[in-house]
Amino acid sequence: MKMILDLDTGVDDTLAIAYALGSPEVDLIGITGTYGNVLMEQGVRNALAITELLGHPEVPVYKGLPHASTKDSFEVMPISAFIHGENGIGDVDIPDATRDAQTDSAVDFIIDAAKTYGKDLVIVPTGPQTNLAAALRKAPEIKDEIGREVLMGGALTVPGNVNAWTEANISQDPDAANFVFRSGIPATMVGLDVTLQTLLTYKETQRWRDLGTAAGKALADITDFYIKAYETTAPYLGGCGLHDPLAVGVAVDPTLVTLLPINMKVDVEGATRGRTIGNEEELTNPVKTMDVAVGVDVPRFLNEFMTRITNLAAQAD
Amino acid sequence: MKMILDLDTGVDDTLAIAYALGSPEVDLIGITGTYGNVLMEQGVRNALAITELLGHPEVPVYKGLPHASTKDSFEVMPISAFIHGENGIGDVDIPDATRDAQTDSAVDFIIDAAKTYGKDLVIVPTGPQTNLAAALRKAPEIKDEIGREVLMGGALTVPGNVNAWTEANISQDPDAANFVFRSGIPATMVGLDVTLQTLLTYKETQRWRDLGTAAGKALADITDFYIKAYETTAPYLGGCGLHDPLAVGVAVDPTLVTLLPINMKVDVEGATRGRTIGNEEELTNPVKTMDVAVGVDVPRFLNEFMTRITNLAAQAD
Repeated sequence: MKMILDLDTGVDDTLAIAYALGSPEVDLIGITGTYGNVLMEQGVRNALAITELLGHPEVPVYKGLPHASTKDSFEVMPISAFIHGENGIGDVDIPDATRDAQTDSAVDFIIDAAKTYGKDLVIVPTGPQTNLAAALRKAPEIKDEIGREVLMGGALTVPGNVNAWTEANISQDPDAANFVFRSGIPATMVGLDVTLQTLLTYKETQRWRDLGTAAGKALADITDFYIKAYETTAPYLGGCGLHDPLAVGVAVDPTLVTLLPINMKVDVEGATRGRTIGNEEELTNPVKTMDVAVGVDVPRFLNEFMTRITNLAAQAD
Repeated sequence: MKMILDLDTGVDDTLAIAYALGSPEVDLIGITGTYGNVLMEQGVRNALAITELLGHPEVPVYKGLPHASTKDSFEVMPISAFIHGENGIGDVDIPDATRDAQTDSAVDFIIDAAKTYGKDLVIVPTGPQTNLAAALRKAPEIKDEIGREVLMGGALTVPGNVNAWTEANISQDPDAANFVFRSGIPATMVGLDVTLQTLLTYKETQRWRDLGTAAGKALADITDFYIKAYETTAPYLGGCGLHDPLAVGVAVDPTLVTLLPINMKVDVEGATRGRTIGNEEELTNPVKTMDVAVGVDVPRFLNEFMTRITNLAAQAD
């Protein structure tokens, strides 16, 4: 399959890149940059650097929109910097890339890719869905052309992580997410329902460090920063949530999760702004355009995750 | 199976009684009265009258607690009277029962039944869970003795019906529901996720009226009041939700629904007080004490519902 990753490259976005590059089923045709864990420009810098670190300088990276459609600027939240580091990748120094971002916009690249690859294309947003919403507004027909969206974001059967009802990616641009959810694009939501079940610990990152490669050491150091932050933010979990890589995993193999077919919406008004929830007015519509992951085969995913990323990190140096 | 219905007898509670009495698998050992659609005393009056109307004067009815554990009184909400009628049964006149409620309390009856019947006992609350919570506080050991609770209440994947996050039964006593959910009692939540999919229309109630029996006519008249209210409160549905009888249906045959195993809680603090949601601190616990119905075989349930209730109403007069 052809895959576009739409990333605010942060720590788990880095692991999503590694999962995609380590998956023989995936042709990663591009990374589009968004904002969230970091500023869009910083995320693009990180995506360029991480792809080179992992031995894939051929992956083009595109600049996306720098803030929500309903706002005129974006600032990184202090909690994001606490979890991902000031530079987004655990305050680990990795070399700048030798190449630059593409000159085309992320939005135009998404539209062009939909026209070129059609049902073979999967887009995986792991931040706010601002870029995809903009592409759908500019070229509404792509909703029927794209194979599928598999997004990391939202929370249907568990509370949010920004507040009791809002997940971080959705909270950045609830209006964009609501637009995408109601657009009719085939979409799978991989939210906190499942990503807080797939936990990584220092034991696994040590395996990457033990590889003796620069890529292995960097991935371990970057991820350890993130695990450390989880010890403060969610000590009951006993590890860090593998949010973004699980979305890639589900894009590659949907049988990793239990899927609930449902037509979703995002609350954009009232006290619960930013909540992802079933659209009660579509409850009896037999056509469901979305699936929400409500269960996950944790051991099988962790095995796929470790196998794919460890093999990649072993070969990348 | 032995069944206790814990009802605030209203319109759909009436249909729940009819479903239970029309089910050969069920031995309805008692009805316990709670508050919600109506005052507890009115609900007990209705339960006594409805069981006699349906030809089952042998079912004992017990008075339960008249208000939430955290309050000292209860008043019927105007919306409840709008949906269920001032008398709770669509403002239809049916004769008072010839018998009275039992002198034992609902709470003691529930405890005694748990001791007597153990795993063969299913309790089906279709209002607030105040009585069951009180029984579990008085005799905590019954959580391991009762077969199962199958409750109508809550909303996991769709918005509430009191406000965007709260369902009516839970909203009456969120603290009781939270106590029951976290108690470890095996429980199946049948909420708006599924009950708003199982719709009844005037076409079906006419079949009861056409039976020519007093029971058939009363059930049709009572239910038509409720369908009429739905035309105002939820016109997009095209019928009335069969909330309470679906809980009985699931107690009799769980294969009518798709069940998501999950450990639930009820928000009792903050902006989302009254919301039913997965307990994030139990997300990675492999032991799930609850199931939530997230899908329903609508044609099969409606067929069971009509067959059982129509047969009962044909024979009851």
